[in-house]
Amino acid sequence: MTLSRLTLYDTTLRDGQQAQGVDFSAGDKARIAQALDALGIDYVEGGWPGANPTDSAFFAAPPRLARARLTAFGMTKRAGRSAANDETLAGVMNAGTASVCLVGKTHDFHVTAALGITLEENVANIAASVAHVAASREALFDAEHFFDGYKANPDYTLACLNAALEGGARWLVLCDTNGGTLPAEVGRIVAEVIASGIPGERLGIHAHDDTGNAVAISLAAVDAGARQIQGTLNGIGERCGNANLVSLIPTLLLKEPYASRFETGIARDDLPKLMGLSRMLDDILNRVPSRSAPYVGSSAFTHKAGLHASAILKDPTTYEHVAPETVGNARYIPMSAQAGQSNLRSRLAKAGIDVRADDPRLAAILTEVKAREDRGFSYDTAGASFEILARELLGEMPRFFDVERYRVTVERRMGPRGEPVTVSEAVVVARFGTERVMSVSESQDPITHADQGPVNALSRALGKDLGPYQPYIDDMRLVDFRVRITSGGTEAVTRVLIDSEDGDGHRWSTVGVSANIVDASFQALRDAILWKLMRDGAPVAGAAVRPAAPARA
Amino acid sequence: MTLSRLTLYDTTLRDGQQAQGVDFSAGDKARIAQALDALGIDYVEGGWPGANPTDSAFFAAPPRLARARLTAFGMTKRAGRSAANDETLAGVMNAGTASVCLVGKTHDFHVTAALGITLEENVANIAASVAHVAASREALFDAEHFFDGYKANPDYTLACLNAALEGGARWLVLCDTNGGTLPAEVGRIVAEVIASGIPGERLGIHAHDDTGNAVAISLAAVDAGARQIQGTLNGIGERCGNANLVSLIPTLLLKEPYASRFETGIARDDLPKLMGLSRMLDDILNRVPSRSAPYVGSSAFTHKAGLHASAILKDPTTYEHVAPETVGNARYIPMSAQAGQSNLRSRLAKAGIDVRADDPRLAAILTEVKAREDRGFSYDTAGASFEILARELLGEMPRFFDVERYRVTVERRMGPRGEPVTVSEAVVVARFGTERVMSVSESQDPITHADQGPVNALSRALGKDLGPYQPYIDDMRLVDFRVRITSGGTEAVTRVLIDSEDGDGHRWSTVGVSANIVDASFQALRDAILWKLMRDGAPVAGAAVRPAAPARA
Repeated sequence: MTLSRLTLYDTTLRDGQQAQGVDFSAGDKARIAQALDALGIDYVEGGWPGANPTDSAFFAAPPRLARARLTAFGMTKRAGRSAANDETLAGVMNAGTASVCLVGKTHDFHVTAALGITLEENVANIAASVAHVAASREALFDAEHFFDGYKANPDYTLACLNAALEGGARWLVLCDTNGGTLPAEVGRIVAEVIASGIPGERLGIHAHDDTGNAVAISLAAVDAGARQIQGTLNGIGERCGNANLVSLIPTLLLKEPYASRFETGIARDDLPKLMGLSRMLDDILNRVPSRSAPYVGSSAFTHKAGLHASAILKDPTTYEHVAPETVGNARYIPMSAQAGQSNLRSRLAKAGIDVRADDPRLAAILTEVKAREDRGFSYDTAGASFEILARELLGEMPRFFDVERYRVTVERRMGPRGEPVTVSEAVVVARFGTERVMSVSESQDPITHADQGPVNALSRALGKDLGPYQPYIDDMRLVDFRVRITSGGTEAVTRVLIDSEDGDGHRWSTVGVSANIVDASFQALRDAILWKLMRDGAPVAGAAVRPAAPARA
Repeated sequence: MTLSRLTLYDTTLRDGQQAQGVDFSAGDKARIAQALDALGIDYVEGGWPGANPTDSAFFAAPPRLARARLTAFGMTKRAGRSAANDETLAGVMNAGTASVCLVGKTHDFHVTAALGITLEENVANIAASVAHVAASREALFDAEHFFDGYKANPDYTLACLNAALEGGARWLVLCDTNGGTLPAEVGRIVAEVIASGIPGERLGIHAHDDTGNAVAISLAAVDAGARQIQGTLNGIGERCGNANLVSLIPTLLLKEPYASRFETGIARDDLPKLMGLSRMLDDILNRVPSRSAPYVGSSAFTHKAGLHASAILKDPTTYEHVAPETVGNARYIPMSAQAGQSNLRSRLAKAGIDVRADDPRLAAILTEVKAREDRGFSYDTAGASFEILARELLGEMPRFFDVERYRVTVERRMGPRGEPVTVSEAVVVARFGTERVMSVSESQDPITHADQGPVNALSRALGKDLGPYQPYIDDMRLVDFRVRITSGGTEAVTRVLIDSEDGDGHRWSTVGVSANIVDASFQALRDAILWKLMRDGAPVAGAAVRPAAPARA
């Protein structure tokens, strides 16, 4: 069976830019375009040249792309002037891209209500604009409000499509601009468009996620015969976003009926790149990656339910629809309240701790983990604290240091000009073997001098002088700090999760729980340091490995 | 045309609990169950009685529900014992709920590979377990791995369904456990199941979002004849989550073909409650609400593109598929100062502050609110802080008191028996007119003597002696305290939201933002007291209403 070609068109840099809170620089755009190109996306829509300074700057110095077609977006000409004399269209053409995509209205209501021109004038504008582009470039026509228009006046929408086709458009992209059309209706309408004589090989789909169906709408259009999908990375876009290419691509490459019917520009071996691309976008936007994202989320192959986890250990296909490695992801079996001993063993093995299945200490560890999780600890997230706890209970955790006491003070008073001034200060007394060190630190941002609070002060004081361990922790930094109150009101218990990173880019997570947020933070900060010392094999100051499990707070 | 009844089944408290990072308390569960009931959800699956302490505690003291059926989840009995003698099943039955949903395997591979019993034994287990439940309760059968099973061995999956049906199951729920089946395939298989003789009025769909299609899968199953949809709030659940009821419900109630074919237990007038329900869950999980969530996201009706925004101002239907008010949401046009001011006036009116449309102070308030929201304040949640800010900017806020300074200390040291002891202490110096009061308080739970942290100490010190205001605040108590870090790493800003309550059961919310968590808490605590004094019309000590807007931290 010969494979049909399915074309992928990315509009992260144009429609994605319409999302609230998204504001790419020209440099961001170039970086994203090159990554999309490296993956094998066919079209990269870069923006609307002339519409804003960033898009103009991006097209003035476009990134070099190996395979993808860089595409400029614009609008069909206005009525009352020729395509050659329309300055908005001229701005788009001047970007000099190989492909140009023009949006035009196809819903009769919008033509008369928003544009205020006759239906015939609009059809003539589409034909003339597309012909103007097609004379020197590859032309795509973006049929705005196509599905709403088709429901209101099918003949008119088809007349618009045919005008673009006759004008020389390579692709007619059917847009569900308002995002309200459901998958079954999109499938039916695409089939009717093809039945009217427009070949599916010329049709694209541009879906929005206003009903949470953008991915399914794209698949329904392909099922009905369309051969181009438009979407964005992580589904960003106007309002609720666009069809998420990061979800669609693995489905198209790995799952039936698509995998054996179609080929795209993306090689299956390159699929693991997708996860990096998704993370890169989050990074540029300074967003926390969605845990639950299909295929690439950190929870996508996480098996928390006890029954699932034990079956997965026997055979991963029991609870996974694709193998995580195929998309660059990994299986994860957290320590949750429902986890059993076999789950615990595999978790320990991952931390490099080998315990035999008949070791009675397994039950003791499980009991302790469960008791702590009932108190609010969350070891499925805080892997480093889990490892420390397990090693302590196994009598394998070196006693690097003890914190004899600490004191944190937050004071707010009026400053010299009557403005409120807040100062946080921490004192830590630590002991290593026979040595004893007292450190004090304020919490001030080095540049703004703004106070950063008691946890920051405590972190600084802890990291300031750990005597013989100092070289091991000098490159550590706190990269994320999350607080959760695990039950409401004054009975609240606070859980603090801390992510730390070292100079080599290693990242680890620790947890602390207490009714006192400062004390919960202290526990997580202490674990973060202990884990680093353990991982780097720091020698224990003044004492041997401690033989028994210590009492921990 | 008579409407068919579509049944909605919520599994937030069971499958939702399987999501990584989700860990409800029994109290959280009761609160969510009651909110689902108030909306009109038909079934609320509360968890698995006997599987863990939280679920057992929840079912031991279940919340009172007006209309929804509280449902206990469990597993079909094991082979080799009777249903009456299966202790896991007994634990489920002992919860005493009106409905019980039992999961059983229907995929031949899982029966032999995971359970290690014969296919016939499994069918017999299903029949006996369902019959055992149906003898005293309404029984639902959850067909695990149904779609994968059907593709491998359709006759066997149908035999399992028929065994449950003959055992007396009211509903047969088709689960796509691994989340890999696509919408078109689900539609085809559901139609085949119905064609085999099982009535669609008995069929439910339980979809997962591993390909980003859970909503579309649910709709495809309904299109094919299924009449129950299972899902969760905000789509939380195992791995990538479940079908999102918050996305599905508005589609079912507002959009064709569903709106004129079906009725659910939810009245259209109650649809605006959905947004509050979605936010409540995020609040309990301490998650930032998804901006781009269909229908309820803050961006769902935000029109950023210039062309869209100007058309929307002429006619909202040009770029909106449903009216935002129908789902309790609101239109937002970031570009338009005009829209911002009318939004603001309606917010002020809600707080009982009447400002004329041509009042120039509106622009000043809007600028200040926006600037503060950019810094992390969240006035949508903290209505009392919004009212205080607006009244201050309008020059209508009485200057009840000033806090001249405060100091909070947290100290941890070793106790007399070598155990760690933590003590928090707060000193507050407040001024009313010419009077000045200094208060000090520790933070100790009156019964356990456990330390409750710096915020608690500060709250006690603030409430201990407010001189002439003391009678007004004596019945105040802090009922909820939520902390959110609004940006990651050391640059983090902390937002504290506090809910307070008085003796009459009034509840109000205040907010504070600072890099210092103690200071953010202080702001929210101070606003909570100020709002109470204002609402109760406390006379200002020593001074008149302050004429101008003060500088606030």
